[in-house]
Amino acid sequence: MTGKRVHIQEVATRDGFQNEAQFVETDAKIALIDDLSACGYAKIEVTSFTSPKAIPALRDAEAVMHGIARRKGIVYTVLVPNIRGAERALSCGVDEVNLVMSVSESHNRTNLRMSREQSFAQLRDVIGVVKQTSVAINVSLSTAMGCPMEGDIAQEAVLGWMQRFADLGVHGVTLCDTTGMAFPSQVGALCAAARKRFPALELTLHFHNTRGMALANTLAALDAGIDRFDASLGGLGGCPYAPGATGNVCTEELVHMLELDGYDTGVDLSALLSASALLPGLIGHDVPSQLLKAGRRLDLHAMPGAASEGRPEQRAFDIN
Amino acid sequence: MTGKRVHIQEVATRDGFQNEAQFVETDAKIALIDDLSACGYAKIEVTSFTSPKAIPALRDAEAVMHGIARRKGIVYTVLVPNIRGAERALSCGVDEVNLVMSVSESHNRTNLRMSREQSFAQLRDVIGVVKQTSVAINVSLSTAMGCPMEGDIAQEAVLGWMQRFADLGVHGVTLCDTTGMAFPSQVGALCAAARKRFPALELTLHFHNTRGMALANTLAALDAGIDRFDASLGGLGGCPYAPGATGNVCTEELVHMLELDGYDTGVDLSALLSASALLPGLIGHDVPSQLLKAGRRLDLHAMPGAASEGRPEQRAFDIN
Repeated sequence: MTGKRVHIQEVATRDGFQNEAQFVETDAKIALIDDLSACGYAKIEVTSFTSPKAIPALRDAEAVMHGIARRKGIVYTVLVPNIRGAERALSCGVDEVNLVMSVSESHNRTNLRMSREQSFAQLRDVIGVVKQTSVAINVSLSTAMGCPMEGDIAQEAVLGWMQRFADLGVHGVTLCDTTGMAFPSQVGALCAAARKRFPALELTLHFHNTRGMALANTLAALDAGIDRFDASLGGLGGCPYAPGATGNVCTEELVHMLELDGYDTGVDLSALLSASALLPGLIGHDVPSQLLKAGRRLDLHAMPGAASEGRPEQRAFDIN
Repeated sequence: MTGKRVHIQEVATRDGFQNEAQFVETDAKIALIDDLSACGYAKIEVTSFTSPKAIPALRDAEAVMHGIARRKGIVYTVLVPNIRGAERALSCGVDEVNLVMSVSESHNRTNLRMSREQSFAQLRDVIGVVKQTSVAINVSLSTAMGCPMEGDIAQEAVLGWMQRFADLGVHGVTLCDTTGMAFPSQVGALCAAARKRFPALELTLHFHNTRGMALANTLAALDAGIDRFDASLGGLGGCPYAPGATGNVCTEELVHMLELDGYDTGVDLSALLSASALLPGLIGHDVPSQLLKAGRRLDLHAMPGAASEGRPEQRAFDIN
């Protein structure tokens, strides 16, 4: 796999921040996104043009979109739930809109307060509006690898929803493991089937680490030919069904593994870790990122006994 | 891979407890190990016959070994550093002794306070003593996938140390990713080489989740034909080089993934989760296990709006 390109898409300022109790100031959001723009992402999901009442954490969507310094080569995308959101997003000159609905009826009703058919009709209208512009359209399918209320989701159901959106001419689909229910063999089978049936669609995998399998699932997706992944800086992003559990796959951990395995992500891991280190100050709590605590695998330690300030204490037989 | 047998070896009461500040009472250790014996493990590393001064957390090794109710079919192994430890272990009737040294000189000197050649000479003597009995001998090679002080470890160096121990007639070798430096392609290559060169050795992989890659590395090892893994209940076990970072791969997360992928671990995941839930009470703090927080992937949730006591709050657009 040496040198094979993998596209990394950052979602922390949307999928991450929308779950945070503490409001991140607009200037801080803009500064963080500008830092991220320097990291080498393929795409950044900047914010969400939802109702400020529904998601107050992202009530400053216009100000953020207007405030950031956009870099050539990065796709700046935003989440859009409806026509009103699409109009707001288009007025800010976004590169892409990201639409969302769930593959499972229960989750769609719980999360979006309507049936899947109502969601589809609404998104079809949004697609009609956006297609009159040059702005790209991605659809994120939630619960594509399991629903926390319904359980297993049939692969054919996922492919069926992909088909309906492909027929409307969207350019990309994201398969979301919304609550971390995916497992490797399932991921491999679904990804292979989706690539075979929709070779022209830009296909993204969106994993959560709720049950620790996000990087293992990534390996399975890579093996099935997937080359595009959502990830969240610091591992931000929660799962309301598992309080205290880890959220989205952590960007720096994903990039760290991919680069070690010889993939070309284009992402500057040092810059990423510096940006991630700012998060606790912005959101008021620690982040799930293990890599931020442990450092990269070749961030070496001195032998104890030499100048040991700040070095870990060693005890005999403490390690295996 | 449906139905392929994978052997799970529990190390929490040795590799986990030795890192804990709070002493776990002997009766509690025995009760936990008896619970674990009912879970269906292939092997349990019960304790360590090291100096009580070096590792006070395991100063009750004899009492624990004598106190547990041993089940047929489970190998009860213990860590042994030297002849004195071996004699203590043999007097307790262990099934196996587990010897340990590092592949890297720096780590061996730091962790074991002697050179690798000194360690080898000492372990050779231990092997000589144990071989006069019917007790099995395993050697755990620390830092086999990277040393926190020296960095990369050449594959040939690992195979060389395996060869020296194979020549002494040990029955098994464990390759330990002591500080979580392994990555999937490295694991795959090392495991394939080790299996090819030592087809008769019982080969175990011992991963840490320090940088989030433990389950991804497990997939890579499985692909290379490995069928035996160490793991630690709750993810107990620290890394002194990464304070606050996750420790050993979490047994329940490993079993959860393997069973979903169709492997036969023989382990009762429900019983495992019940045992893991006891750990915080024993050690005085939360454990890294994500699965303990999130539940199994098909532990479903009710739709909100019905009787919702204890159910997660739902907000519109909060999940992807």
